[in-house]
Amino acid sequence: MTMTEERLDAAFAALADPTRRAIVSRLARGDATVSELAAPFDMSLPGISKHLKVLERSGLISRGRDAQFRPCHLEVEALDGALDWIGAHRRMWDERFDKLDALLAGIQRAPAPASPRQGRARPRA
Amino acid sequence: MTMTEERLDAAFAALADPTRRAIVSRLARGDATVSELAAPFDMSLPGISKHLKVLERSGLISRGRDAQFRPCHLEVEALDGALDWIGAHRRMWDERFDKLDALLAGIQRAPAPASPRQGRARPRA
Repeated sequence: MTMTEERLDAAFAALADPTRRAIVSRLARGDATVSELAAPFDMSLPGISKHLKVLERSGLISRGRDAQFRPCHLEVEALDGALDWIGAHRRMWDERFDKLDALLAGIQRAPAPASPRQGRARPRA
Repeated sequence: MTMTEERLDAAFAALADPTRRAIVSRLARGDATVSELAAPFDMSLPGISKHLKVLERSGLISRGRDAQFRPCHLEVEALDGALDWIGAHRRMWDERFDKLDALLAGIQRAPAPASPRQGRARPRA
Protein backbone atom coordinates (compact mmCIF):
# COMPACT_ATOMS: atom_id res chain seq x y z
CA MET A 1 0.00 0.00 0.00
CA THR A 2 1.31 3.44 -0.90
CA MET A 3 0.46 6.28 1.43
CA THR A 4 0.67 9.95 0.66
CA GLU A 5 3.34 11.93 2.47
CA GLU A 6 0.63 13.66 4.52
CA ARG A 7 -0.78 10.34 5.74
CA LEU A 8 2.70 9.13 6.67
CA ASP A 9 3.41 12.40 8.52
CA ALA A 10 0.18 11.94 10.49
CA ALA A 11 0.70 8.22 11.18
CA PHE A 12 4.27 8.67 12.45
CA ALA A 13 3.32 11.77 14.50
CA ALA A 14 0.42 9.83 16.06
CA LEU A 15 2.79 6.99 17.01
CA ALA A 16 5.27 9.42 18.61
CA ASP A 17 3.51 9.30 21.99
CA PRO A 18 3.51 6.46 24.56
CA THR A 19 -0.20 6.82 25.47
CA ARG A 20 -1.24 6.72 21.82
CA ARG A 21 1.01 3.70 21.21
CA ALA A 22 -0.60 1.97 24.23
CA ILE A 23 -4.04 2.69 22.73
CA VAL A 24 -2.97 1.23 19.36
CA SER A 25 -1.55 -1.76 21.26
CA ARG A 26 -4.86 -2.34 23.06
CA LEU A 27 -6.87 -1.97 19.84
CA ALA A 28 -4.64 -4.50 18.05
CA ARG A 29 -6.25 -7.04 20.41
CA GLY A 30 -9.81 -5.89 19.60
CA ASP A 31 -12.18 -2.94 19.50
CA ALA A 32 -12.71 -1.02 22.75
CA THR A 33 -14.79 1.84 24.13
CA VAL A 34 -13.23 5.09 25.40
CA SER A 35 -13.81 3.98 29.03
CA GLU A 36 -12.08 0.65 28.37
CA LEU A 37 -9.16 2.47 26.74
CA ALA A 38 -8.92 4.99 29.60
CA ALA A 39 -8.98 2.31 32.34
CA PRO A 40 -5.22 1.47 32.42
CA PHE A 41 -4.19 5.15 32.40
CA ASP A 42 -4.11 7.72 35.14
CA MET A 43 -5.77 10.13 32.73
CA SER A 44 -9.10 11.92 32.49
CA LEU A 45 -11.61 10.93 29.78
CA PRO A 46 -11.07 14.30 28.02
CA GLY A 47 -7.33 13.59 28.08
CA ILE A 48 -7.86 10.21 26.42
CA SER A 49 -10.35 11.74 23.97
CA LYS A 50 -7.70 14.22 22.85
CA HIS A 51 -5.32 11.35 22.02
CA LEU A 52 -8.15 9.49 20.24
CA LYS A 53 -8.80 12.55 18.08
CA VAL A 54 -5.13 12.62 17.00
CA LEU A 55 -5.27 8.89 16.21
CA GLU A 56 -8.57 9.30 14.33
CA ARG A 57 -7.27 12.24 12.25
CA SER A 58 -4.14 10.20 11.40
CA GLY A 59 -6.33 7.40 10.04
CA LEU A 60 -4.87 4.88 12.52
CA ILE A 61 -8.24 4.38 14.24
CA SER A 62 -11.90 4.84 13.41
CA ARG A 63 -14.90 5.06 15.72
CA GLY A 64 -18.24 3.30 15.56
CA ARG A 65 -21.42 5.22 14.87
CA ASP A 66 -23.22 4.00 18.01
CA ALA A 67 -23.86 7.37 19.72
CA GLN A 68 -23.43 6.05 23.26
CA PHE A 69 -20.36 3.81 23.07
CA ARG A 70 -18.66 4.60 19.73
CA PRO A 71 -16.16 1.73 20.01
CA CYS A 72 -12.67 2.46 18.69
CA HIS A 73 -11.27 0.27 15.93
CA LEU A 74 -7.70 -0.04 14.66
CA GLU A 75 -7.35 0.78 10.95
CA VAL A 76 -4.61 -1.65 10.16
CA GLU A 77 -4.00 -0.30 6.62
CA ALA A 78 -2.65 2.95 8.11
CA LEU A 79 -0.31 0.92 10.33
CA ASP A 80 0.76 -1.03 7.22
CA GLY A 81 1.62 2.20 5.42
CA ALA A 82 4.05 3.18 8.19
CA LEU A 83 5.39 -0.40 8.41
CA ASP A 84 5.94 -0.56 4.64
CA TRP A 85 7.82 2.72 4.57
CA ILE A 86 10.28 1.67 7.29
CA GLY A 87 10.50 -1.89 5.93
CA ALA A 88 11.37 -0.69 2.41
CA HIS A 89 14.22 1.44 3.75
CA ARG A 90 15.44 -1.36 5.99
CA ARG A 91 15.63 -3.63 2.93
CA MET A 92 17.41 -0.89 0.94
CA TRP A 93 20.05 -0.79 3.68
CA ASP A 94 20.41 -4.60 3.71
CA GLU A 95 20.68 -4.79 -0.08
CA ARG A 96 23.52 -2.29 0.03
CA PHE A 97 25.47 -4.64 2.30
CA ASP A 98 24.47 -7.70 0.26
CA LYS A 99 26.00 -5.98 -2.78
CA LEU A 100 29.15 -5.17 -0.80
CA ASP A 101 29.35 -8.81 0.37
CA ALA A 102 28.95 -10.07 -3.22
CA LEU A 103 31.66 -7.66 -4.36
CA LEU A 104 34.03 -8.82 -1.62
CA ALA A 105 33.28 -12.50 -2.36
CA GLY A 106 34.07 -11.81 -6.04
CA ILE A 107 37.39 -10.22 -5.11
CA GLN A 108 38.30 -13.18 -2.86
CA ARG A 109 37.44 -15.72 -5.61
CA ALA A 110 39.56 -13.94 -8.23
CA PRO A 111 43.12 -15.44 -8.53
CA ALA A 112 45.71 -13.35 -6.72
CA PRO A 113 48.13 -11.57 -9.08
CA ALA A 114 51.44 -13.43 -9.29
CA SER A 115 54.11 -11.75 -7.19
CA PRO A 116 57.50 -11.19 -8.88
CA ARG A 117 59.12 -12.74 -5.74
CA GLN A 118 56.88 -15.84 -5.89
CA GLY A 119 58.77 -19.14 -6.06
CA ARG A 120 62.11 -17.55 -5.36
CA ALA A 121 63.87 -18.99 -2.37
CA ARG A 122 65.49 -16.40 -0.21
CA PRO A 123 69.20 -17.09 0.10
CA ARG A 124 70.10 -18.24 3.57
CA ALA A 125 72.36 -16.01 5.57
CA MET B 1 15.78 -5.00 19.83
CA THR B 2 13.80 -3.30 22.59
CA MET B 3 13.73 0.46 22.64
CA THR B 4 12.71 2.68 25.52
CA GLU B 5 9.50 4.64 25.11
CA GLU B 6 11.54 7.86 24.84
CA ARG B 7 13.60 6.47 21.95
CA LEU B 8 10.44 5.34 20.17
CA ASP B 9 8.83 8.76 20.72
CA ALA B 10 11.90 10.41 19.18
CA ALA B 11 12.22 7.95 16.27
CA PHE B 12 8.54 8.26 15.25
CA ALA B 13 8.57 12.05 15.70
CA ALA B 14 11.69 12.27 13.51
CA LEU B 15 9.98 10.20 10.80
CA ALA B 16 6.87 12.42 10.86
CA ASP B 17 8.31 14.86 8.33
CA PRO B 18 8.76 14.37 4.56
CA THR B 19 12.19 16.09 4.39
CA ARG B 20 13.53 13.98 7.25
CA ARG B 21 12.12 10.82 5.63
CA ALA B 22 13.84 11.80 2.35
CA ILE B 23 17.12 12.21 4.26
CA VAL B 24 16.70 8.75 5.86
CA SER B 25 15.88 7.39 2.40
CA ARG B 26 19.07 8.88 0.94
CA LEU B 27 21.21 7.60 3.83
CA ALA B 28 19.79 4.07 3.44
CA ARG B 29 21.77 4.04 0.16
CA GLY B 30 24.98 5.23 1.80
CA ASP B 31 26.59 7.93 3.94
CA ALA B 32 26.38 11.52 2.67
CA THR B 33 27.60 14.99 3.56
CA VAL B 34 25.22 17.83 4.47
CA SER B 35 25.75 19.42 1.03
CA GLU B 36 24.92 16.13 -0.70
CA LEU B 37 21.79 15.77 1.44
CA ALA B 38 20.73 19.37 0.79
CA ALA B 39 21.20 19.12 -3.01
CA PRO B 40 17.74 17.66 -3.92
CA PHE B 41 15.86 20.12 -1.68
CA ASP B 42 14.95 23.72 -2.21
CA MET B 43 16.19 24.41 1.30
CA SER B 44 19.03 26.37 2.90
CA LEU B 45 21.89 24.51 4.59
CA PRO B 46 20.75 25.81 8.02
CA GLY B 47 17.27 24.42 7.21
CA ILE B 48 18.73 20.99 6.43
CA SER B 49 20.99 21.20 9.51
CA LYS B 50 17.93 21.72 11.70
CA HIS B 51 16.38 18.49 10.35
CA LEU B 52 19.70 16.67 10.78
CA LYS B 53 19.80 17.74 14.43
CA VAL B 54 16.31 16.25 15.00
CA LEU B 55 17.41 13.02 13.29
CA GLU B 56 20.66 12.92 15.28
CA ARG B 57 18.89 13.50 18.62
CA SER B 58 16.41 10.71 17.74
CA GLY B 59 19.30 8.30 17.23
CA LEU B 60 18.29 7.63 13.60
CA ILE B 61 21.49 9.14 12.25
CA SER B 62 25.00 9.82 13.49
CA ARG B 63 27.66 12.14 12.10
CA GLY B 64 31.31 11.52 11.42
CA ARG B 65 33.99 13.32 13.39
CA ASP B 66 35.75 14.78 10.36
CA ALA B 67 35.44 18.50 11.19
CA GLN B 68 35.03 19.65 7.60
CA PHE B 69 32.60 17.12 6.08
CA ARG B 70 31.06 15.21 9.04
CA PRO B 71 29.29 12.65 6.79
CA CYS B 72 25.85 11.53 7.97
CA HIS B 73 25.25 7.85 8.63
CA LEU B 74 21.99 5.98 9.11
CA GLU B 75 21.79 4.19 12.47
CA VAL B 76 19.76 1.23 11.33
CA GLU B 77 19.16 -0.11 14.87
CA ALA B 78 16.95 2.91 15.63
CA LEU B 79 14.98 2.24 12.44
CA ASP B 80 14.68 -1.40 13.54
CA GLY B 81 13.23 -0.34 16.88
CA ALA B 82 10.41 1.54 15.15
CA LEU B 83 9.94 -1.29 12.63
CA ASP B 84 9.76 -3.91 15.39
CA TRP B 85 7.18 -1.95 17.34
CA ILE B 86 4.81 -1.62 14.38
CA GLY B 87 5.54 -5.17 13.18
CA ALA B 88 4.72 -6.68 16.58
CA HIS B 89 1.34 -4.94 16.63
CA ARG B 90 0.63 -5.91 13.04
CA ARG B 91 1.24 -9.56 13.96
CA MET B 92 -0.96 -9.18 17.07
CA TRP B 93 -3.77 -8.02 14.79
CA ASP B 94 -3.23 -10.91 12.35
CA GLU B 95 -3.11 -13.50 15.14
CA ARG B 96 -6.47 -12.25 16.40
CA PHE B 97 -8.02 -13.04 13.02
CA ASP B 98 -6.15 -16.36 12.77
CA LYS B 99 -7.76 -17.36 16.08
CA LEU B 100 -11.19 -16.26 14.80
CA ASP B 101 -10.65 -18.29 11.61
CA ALA B 102 -9.65 -21.36 13.65
CA LEU B 103 -12.73 -20.92 15.83
CA LEU B 104 -15.01 -20.65 12.78
CA ALA B 105 -13.37 -23.69 11.13
CA GLY B 106 -13.97 -25.66 14.37
CA ILE B 107 -17.64 -24.69 14.37
CA GLN B 108 -18.02 -25.72 10.71
CA ARG B 109 -16.35 -29.12 11.32
CA ALA B 110 -18.56 -29.97 14.33
CA PRO B 111 -21.63 -32.15 13.40
CA ALA B 112 -24.86 -30.18 13.17
CA PRO B 113 -27.25 -30.90 16.08
CA ALA B 114 -29.98 -33.40 15.01
CA SER B 115 -33.27 -31.66 14.31
CA PRO B 116 -36.34 -33.23 16.00
CA ARG B 117 -38.10 -33.07 12.61
CA GLN B 118 -35.24 -34.93 10.87
CA GLY B 119 -36.32 -38.10 9.03
CA ARG B 120 -40.01 -37.38 9.36
CA ALA B 121 -41.78 -37.04 6.06
CA ARG B 122 -44.21 -34.20 5.93
CA PRO B 123 -47.71 -35.45 5.07
CA ARG B 124 -48.75 -34.42 1.59
CA ALA B 125 -51.65 -32.11 1.35
